Amino acid sequence: MIDDKESVGLVETKYFEFAKDSPLELECGRTLGPITLAYETYGGLSPAKDNAILVLHALSGDAHAAGYSSADEEKPSGWWDNMIGPGKGLDTNKYFIICSNIIGGCKGSTGPSSIDPATGKQYGLTFPVVTIPDMVKAQKMLIDHLGIDRLLCVIGGSMGGMQVLQWVISYPEMVRLAIPIATTARLSPQAIAFDEVGRAAIMGDPGWMGGDYYGKANPERGLSIARMIGHITYLSDKSMHQKFARKLQDKIEYDYDFVTDFQVESYLRYKGESFVKRFDANSYLYISKAMDYFDLAQGYDSLKDTFEGITAKFLVISFSSDWLFPPYQSKEIVSALRQNNTEAVYTEIHSDYGHDAFLLEVEQLTRLISNFLMHGQRKT
Amino acid sequence: MIDDKESVGLVETKYFEFAKDSPLELECGRTLGPITLAYETYGGLSPAKDNAILVLHALSGDAHAAGYSSADEEKPSGWWDNMIGPGKGLDTNKYFIICSNIIGGCKGSTGPSSIDPATGKQYGLTFPVVTIPDMVKAQKMLIDHLGIDRLLCVIGGSMGGMQVLQWVISYPEMVRLAIPIATTARLSPQAIAFDEVGRAAIMGDPGWMGGDYYGKANPERGLSIARMIGHITYLSDKSMHQKFARKLQDKIEYDYDFVTDFQVESYLRYKGESFVKRFDANSYLYISKAMDYFDLAQGYDSLKDTFEGITAKFLVISFSSDWLFPPYQSKEIVSALRQNNTEAVYTEIHSDYGHDAFLLEVEQLTRLISNFLMHGQRKT
Repeated sequence: MIDDKESVGLVETKYFEFAKDSPLELECGRTLGPITLAYETYGGLSPAKDNAILVLHALSGDAHAAGYSSADEEKPSGWWDNMIGPGKGLDTNKYFIICSNIIGGCKGSTGPSSIDPATGKQYGLTFPVVTIPDMVKAQKMLIDHLGIDRLLCVIGGSMGGMQVLQWVISYPEMVRLAIPIATTARLSPQAIAFDEVGRAAIMGDPGWMGGDYYGKANPERGLSIARMIGHITYLSDKSMHQKFARKLQDKIEYDYDFVTDFQVESYLRYKGESFVKRFDANSYLYISKAMDYFDLAQGYDSLKDTFEGITAKFLVISFSSDWLFPPYQSKEIVSALRQNNTEAVYTEIHSDYGHDAFLLEVEQLTRLISNFLMHGQRKT
Repeated sequence: MIDDKESVGLVETKYFEFAKDSPLELECGRTLGPITLAYETYGGLSPAKDNAILVLHALSGDAHAAGYSSADEEKPSGWWDNMIGPGKGLDTNKYFIICSNIIGGCKGSTGPSSIDPATGKQYGLTFPVVTIPDMVKAQKMLIDHLGIDRLLCVIGGSMGGMQVLQWVISYPEMVRLAIPIATTARLSPQAIAFDEVGRAAIMGDPGWMGGDYYGKANPERGLSIARMIGHITYLSDKSMHQKFARKLQDKIEYDYDFVTDFQVESYLRYKGESFVKRFDANSYLYISKAMDYFDLAQGYDSLKDTFEGITAKFLVISFSSDWLFPPYQSKEIVSALRQNNTEAVYTEIHSDYGHDAFLLEVEQLTRLISNFLMHGQRKT
């Protein structure tokens, strides 16, 4: 029995099935169907259906953004529970919050580990390459299904922020407010490089077997290497100094061997090892590739042109120590919006947490987001 | 026939053998012997033996710092040929330059791929863990062997800079001038983290076989992953934008598959694949571990105390976009030196090249280093 007034309480993941008869057309030219989207909702939809907020998750996220998924849990297991709930930044007393797992993932939505109805076997690498616009296209089907014509807001950090930007471009008339956090309009070559090393580690793992490892074991070594690399990019030099410095793990002197010595090593190993238990290696390949391909200005002359005619109001947030999606990349977005006279509030939050700050700087995010929603709701 | 007046010409790597009867005592408590050090020299030793400069190399470097190693080469193959030669920053018309390969390496000096005389087989992981002080201790034997009581200068970048600092601490009376470039007094947790992921990739490669792969194949997959990670840290976000941007490799549209799409991916793959042909995976483990263990202030109360009584004059150089060994780490060294009233010139070179700048910013380095040597030689 959950008694937590600060939380949305026990929630159930729902599943929306579509694209059975007419499969979804993807950017790559192939189609996908049938499709299942796992999603959760918190709060109530207003009679006018004008209070819906779509939350978009990052690489390893899922539909379970808030509350408890089981009555046995001692604390809320939703990945953004500190932001979503009664009286929180995304206030469930006021707003109807939707969070859906992306296609290509492995948390209930259709992805490479799903059964291909054409063969009766997991897709593996026969799954089509999906892009951020494809993910958004699938989410749009869900929003239609929920009977919502216009979203009050789309919000998300990291890859979630990419989806926010894409929503505004793909369905401009459906978005009133947009909050891209710690994100970019196009992935930088440095970030592509880190993704590529992660993929090389997975695909170089003999256990990966060309992606056809289902029923055997997840290629854990490669996937854990990929995750370790990712984790370094989510922290900052400074936060690592503060968190680990050069402290040794369970010892006071060097061992002079190749077992881990430093706390930072143990931390990364642990993060890598726990990740492989909850994430599918092929999904990692597909999602990281979708991020690499993301370039909002592709097909346009400039980022400015991309935003032409956009009516959504923006709150763009970056973090000073985020070197994966550095503030200058958020400023590029803001600059392109303002060249179109689109209303865009920009805030760079001073934080030592690096990219992870979008999950940790709760107090500042809460204040910024709740104010923006309140004013934006009145004005738009 | 080499006709290159700007180069030291054809050079031969020499080999110094020692520690046959009394093995070298290492920091880890074990001993190593016999030891071979591969080294090269350029220019002539003055009758007073007061013009010797010891060049110290980085992780993947070797003794061949300048000139041609074969008459067939079309251009000089030495890794720092743009700095070492007649009229260059390290002017072989004036100075006697020595460069020795480190112990633990795989370029002619004793390392894990050397034959252990006790077993007649390669050491592999039975090779003792060596540290930066151990490397310097071995170099000191070489300098003694060459009959040099005092070095005019010790100079090096990256891990070479760590050895510079260690030389001054271990043998203060033997060093007149010290030039640590793009380095640190202690490896940061972020850099340790990257090293650890590289080691995890090597040790997770089934071909590594506990380090006992000699006579079979180098564990290429793991080693190439480690090298790819390294390369990202040697460049900067900006230099990657300038060099690669989001340009595709040999195509104009996405392939929507998992073969490399972007130039930056092809570049990294190429760097990884070429590295495994010339470098031993176990050496990578040992050398990266030596860097992780490096902490000049260990055993002292502070970095200031570490430098107490040091008489060498310093030129400390950092690069603005180096995020592996950021300028603040060089400033820490300078600050600790100045607290001891040690003469320390500090220059942060503005460069977009990242950590690699120490091999690329030739013009500025040449001017700084040649001036410092000229003045320093007169004054000390």
